[in-house]
Amino acid sequence: MRLHAHVNPASPLAAIFFESRIQAALPDGVALSFSASPEGLEEGLATAEVLLLVGQAPLQDLPRRAPHLRWISYASAGVEWLLQAGLPDGVTLTNASGTHISKAAEFALLSVLMLHNRLPHFATAQRAHRWAPQPVGTVAGRTVLVLGMGALGGAAATALARQGMRVIGNSQSGRPHPDVAVMTQGDGFRAWLPQADVLLIALPLTPATHGLIGRAELDLLPPHAGVVNIGRGEILDAEALAAKLQEGSLSGAVLDALPQEPLPADSPLWDTPNLVITPHCGLYDPAEYAPRCLDAFAANLARFREGEALHQVVDRARGY
Amino acid sequence: MRLHAHVNPASPLAAIFFESRIQAALPDGVALSFSASPEGLEEGLATAEVLLLVGQAPLQDLPRRAPHLRWISYASAGVEWLLQAGLPDGVTLTNASGTHISKAAEFALLSVLMLHNRLPHFATAQRAHRWAPQPVGTVAGRTVLVLGMGALGGAAATALARQGMRVIGNSQSGRPHPDVAVMTQGDGFRAWLPQADVLLIALPLTPATHGLIGRAELDLLPPHAGVVNIGRGEILDAEALAAKLQEGSLSGAVLDALPQEPLPADSPLWDTPNLVITPHCGLYDPAEYAPRCLDAFAANLARFREGEALHQVVDRARGY
Repeated sequence: MRLHAHVNPASPLAAIFFESRIQAALPDGVALSFSASPEGLEEGLATAEVLLLVGQAPLQDLPRRAPHLRWISYASAGVEWLLQAGLPDGVTLTNASGTHISKAAEFALLSVLMLHNRLPHFATAQRAHRWAPQPVGTVAGRTVLVLGMGALGGAAATALARQGMRVIGNSQSGRPHPDVAVMTQGDGFRAWLPQADVLLIALPLTPATHGLIGRAELDLLPPHAGVVNIGRGEILDAEALAAKLQEGSLSGAVLDALPQEPLPADSPLWDTPNLVITPHCGLYDPAEYAPRCLDAFAANLARFREGEALHQVVDRARGY
Repeated sequence: MRLHAHVNPASPLAAIFFESRIQAALPDGVALSFSASPEGLEEGLATAEVLLLVGQAPLQDLPRRAPHLRWISYASAGVEWLLQAGLPDGVTLTNASGTHISKAAEFALLSVLMLHNRLPHFATAQRAHRWAPQPVGTVAGRTVLVLGMGALGGAAATALARQGMRVIGNSQSGRPHPDVAVMTQGDGFRAWLPQADVLLIALPLTPATHGLIGRAELDLLPPHAGVVNIGRGEILDAEALAAKLQEGSLSGAVLDALPQEPLPADSPLWDTPNLVITPHCGLYDPAEYAPRCLDAFAANLARFREGEALHQVVDRARGY
C-alpha cells in the first residue's frame, strides 16, 4: 500500500507534522513517500493510493495526476476548499473532525464567560483609561444558542451545561444531545435568537452556512447578548456585527474565526468597541493535535487495508 | 432592640441597600432607624445597640458617640479600615464574608482560563493590530497556587479543580480542603511559586498580607505564569508586576483589585502589556448580593436576640 504525505510548509501545522513523526505513527508494510514542495507532491501523487495532506495544496485534475488515488486524509477540519477543487467520485475524503474537542470545549467556555462577564467592554474601557464597572450575576440559568452540534458544538454544549447554562442546540439533523435543553433544526434557530444571552457559532463552512448570520439575524438578538465565532469567518457578516457593536445594540463578541486570516493591520475590526479578536488558535492544542490526528489516521489506515468503512468521512453533499 | 442602618451614598452598594429592602428583611420587634448622612449616622449611633453599615463611615471614638453599641454588621468583606479606626472591645464585628462565593468561583475560573489561553497577550496584540497566535493546550493538569483559602479562595479552588487543574492552597491555618492537592501554610507558599502556572490572590488585607507579593515573589514564578488578584490591591506590588510584564518575564495578569480605585486615568497600568484590568466588580452579583447579605444579617439578628454566638465574626487579631 503506497502512502504519500504532503505538508504545505506555509501551514501553521507544518511544524508539528514532520516526516519522522508521521513515519513513526504508521504500521509496518506501508511505503511512505513525503513532500513539502509542489514537485514532490506531483511525484507522490503519481503512485499514491492514499494521500495524507497537511495544509492546503492544489488538487485539481486528480484523475490525471493521481490515477491510483482512493483516499485523501486531510489533517484539519475545514474541507470547503477541497470540495471546490472537484474531487473524483472514487476518492474518499476524511478530515480531522473531532480532534479539537477538549480544547474547543475549554475555549467555548472561556468565550462565553468573557462575554457574560463583560470582558470585551472592560478591554475597550481599558484602552480609553476608563474605570467603568458593569456587574452581572453568574452565568448559571442564562441561555446559550449553539449553532452546529458536531464534535465542537457538542463539546461546547457539555462544558456550558456544566456551568448551569440552558443550552439551545441547532443542527441540520436536529438529533438530540444529552446536554442540550431544546434541540432545533435548520432555520428553527431563528425563533430562539430573541432568547439568547450568547450566540455560539460552531458550524462548518458550506454553501448553506456561508453568510448565515447577517444583520437580520443579529437584530433578533437582545441588546445585552454576545456573539462567539469558533466556526469559520465567512459564516458571520463581520461588518454587520461591527456596526451593531458600534451602536451598542449588542454587548460584545469574541471572534476566533475572521473574514480574512491573518486579519490585515488596517482592518477596522481591530478597533471595534467590545470586540475581542483571537488569532484562530483558540481550538488548537499544539502538543496534542498531531499525535491525536495521527492516531486517528493510523486507525483509519488499518480499516482501509481491511476493507472496512473509514471514520471521519466527509459527506460531500453536506460539505462536512 | 434598637437597630440603626447607615448607608454611605458614595458606596456602589448604596443603590441596592435601600431602606424599604432593609426593613422588609427584619423580623418583628426590631426598631429600625436609617441614615445616609453624617448627621443621621450621629443621631442613630446615640441610641443604637446594633449598627448595620453599608459602605465606609467615620467610626472613631465610638464609646462616646455610641454608648449602647454591641454589634456592627458590615455589608462587605474588607474590614481593614474599620479595625484601624479602633473598635471598642465590647463591640462585636461581623462582615459579609462568603456572600460572594458563586460569583467569585466563576470569576476566578474566567481569569485563570484567560491567563492560560493568553487572552491578555491577544488584547495587547489587538491594540497594536497584530495577528500573533500563541496556541496552548488545555488547562487540565496545570498548577494554580491559591493564596487565601477563605470563602472566596475555597470556591475558586473547587471551580479550578473541576477543570482538572492541580490546586495548591495556602492559608494561615493550613487546614485541608477537599479540592486542594497540596495545602501549604504561612510562608510555605514561596516554595511552590516556581511550579505555579497561575498565582491566584484571594487574601484579605491585613498587616501580614500588605505587600506580601512583591518583586522577589514574582521573580520565583516561571516566565509563562500569570497572576490574578481578586483580593485587595495593596497585597500585590502592582509596579513590580508591571515591570515584569514589560520585560516579558510573566505572560499576563488579571487585576480586579487595584492599588487605587477607581484607577486614575493617568495610571501607567492601563497601558501595561498583557495586563487586563477589571474595575473591581468581578465578584459582585448585583441581583443576589443584597438579598443574601440581608438574609445572613437577619439570621445573625435572631442569634443576637437569643444570646447565641454570631456567624461571620471578624477575628481582630487575624484581621478577617
